[in-house]
Amino acid sequence: MTADRHSASYVDLIQDSHEQFLLLADTQALTDNAHDPAKVRQGVMEVALDYLAVGIDPTKTAICLQSHLPALAELSMLYLNFVSVARLERNPTIKDEIRTRGFGRNIPAGFLCYPAAQAADITAFKATVVPVGDDQAPLIEQTNEIVRRINTMTGRAILPIVQAIIPQVGRLPSVDGKTKMSKSGGNAIALSASPDEITAAVRAMFTDPKHLRVEDPGQVEGNVVFTYLEVFDEDRVTLQDLKAQYQRGGLGDSKIKRRLEEILQVLLRPIRERRAQLAKDPAYVLDMIRIGTEKARSRTEATKRDVIEGLGLFTL
Amino acid sequence: MTADRHSASYVDLIQDSHEQFLLLADTQALTDNAHDPAKVRQGVMEVALDYLAVGIDPTKTAICLQSHLPALAELSMLYLNFVSVARLERNPTIKDEIRTRGFGRNIPAGFLCYPAAQAADITAFKATVVPVGDDQAPLIEQTNEIVRRINTMTGRAILPIVQAIIPQVGRLPSVDGKTKMSKSGGNAIALSASPDEITAAVRAMFTDPKHLRVEDPGQVEGNVVFTYLEVFDEDRVTLQDLKAQYQRGGLGDSKIKRRLEEILQVLLRPIRERRAQLAKDPAYVLDMIRIGTEKARSRTEATKRDVIEGLGLFTL
Repeated sequence: MTADRHSASYVDLIQDSHEQFLLLADTQALTDNAHDPAKVRQGVMEVALDYLAVGIDPTKTAICLQSHLPALAELSMLYLNFVSVARLERNPTIKDEIRTRGFGRNIPAGFLCYPAAQAADITAFKATVVPVGDDQAPLIEQTNEIVRRINTMTGRAILPIVQAIIPQVGRLPSVDGKTKMSKSGGNAIALSASPDEITAAVRAMFTDPKHLRVEDPGQVEGNVVFTYLEVFDEDRVTLQDLKAQYQRGGLGDSKIKRRLEEILQVLLRPIRERRAQLAKDPAYVLDMIRIGTEKARSRTEATKRDVIEGLGLFTL
Repeated sequence: MTADRHSASYVDLIQDSHEQFLLLADTQALTDNAHDPAKVRQGVMEVALDYLAVGIDPTKTAICLQSHLPALAELSMLYLNFVSVARLERNPTIKDEIRTRGFGRNIPAGFLCYPAAQAADITAFKATVVPVGDDQAPLIEQTNEIVRRINTMTGRAILPIVQAIIPQVGRLPSVDGKTKMSKSGGNAIALSASPDEITAAVRAMFTDPKHLRVEDPGQVEGNVVFTYLEVFDEDRVTLQDLKAQYQRGGLGDSKIKRRLEEILQVLLRPIRERRAQLAKDPAYVLDMIRIGTEKARSRTEATKRDVIEGLGLFTL
């Protein structure tokens, strides 16, 4: 979920000042959903709708489909030769995911290798900046290791060093405050959430379990409602007052939840409506993906040629 | 090295009765030569010349270049999701190679993953038979595991089960009898070997170290000269006599080496000459690779589409 006004400014900031590619990462989604390709297929359209609904302008930003860009797989396979198994296993994101998903040694090889694939996804566009969540920072580091390795091998700065843009607010926590939001976890607020779903999600939000009575002092840190207010409430003065009151005691959860709910309802209504509108015209969305993928194809093919020629492989 | 008459019959047997693709595996060569892409580049032309010199007819057999067939990388990346890291590590060929090369945990990820890449190389052509050395049999087994997995997932026999053809003579041992031949190991007889190189290689061949005097009984098993005679000497009766005499005692190494040398000189002369002739016309060889790669491209792209559609991924 992302904010309309906030996201509008952020979205426009990026797509007006940068040449932007957004990757519908269906191939990567297979690395932990190989048993359910149908889910991966369905995700493609949903994510494209999300992008368009929050204000991604397909005339400015290329929305492209990973599985239809062969150069990404080719660069991935090349990069796998420049990273050791030990290095992949040391990657904190991978370590964490292996633990969370209980993969153990039965981790699919594709999952272990996905940092190399992600390096391909980024470098194929010669990207200079990538907006990521803070948990993804180690993947950018690993990408840059591969970038340096390729540039050293070829003796030229074929690939640019990439910079992670980590939003100040970080990632929004899940409704239950335990982890990051995930649709399958049932702890997320979708951009398509109905008014009732928004109401239910905010009501279920994790606050301070020790804040039992209105007059009790409450914690603001780790309180999901305040975390969301911090991001979405534009009336900063009132928010500071509410925080202070909550910490002192005398402010009930229901009040802060009602405030957040109103903000989210206002925020999400236009996104939901735009999304519903777009969902009625899948041919248009498909066209936008096709156009974006075509643009991405020539870009990524060119990079692949640069890398292959730079390494001095045989060319026909 | 392979025999002219013997190979001619073998070569013709395959290319006359089967639609054959020969892959110049430059991408795979990178998995253990990532530090030296120039060596990989040079190998392409050398291997193509070897193929043509032994009688591969490019009008019957497509000689194609791995790095120029994107579908191979795309299928490799897909297959990596259907094989666990533990399974790759259990592969006897991989285990063996990790030990031989002293990779340890610093094994490049590309090397660990190459059985999945090889499965892609085979299945992309919907190959039904693959001639391999006996050491490669586990890789065919692993390929068939992936084939079954894909066919189960798609509910259709999209990919055929592949059968390994292991030549009766197995692989020729290296000149020193220690391992398999390798150019870098300096223990091979190249198809381009000059008469002097052939002489030197046969003289250096490992026999029976306990067979010190002519009159001593000698061992035939593990004796590289006899292993070669077994493959290349067409006069089977005389060969049986020589073996018996050697085992009894009374036959010197120099005699059996002279016999083998003569056979190899006769065998390799036409191959060497044809190879030298072809090497003068790299444009022709390049053309043959281009034509073969084009044919392979449409074949492998079709298979990739079959797999992607079979799995039910999103298609544009």
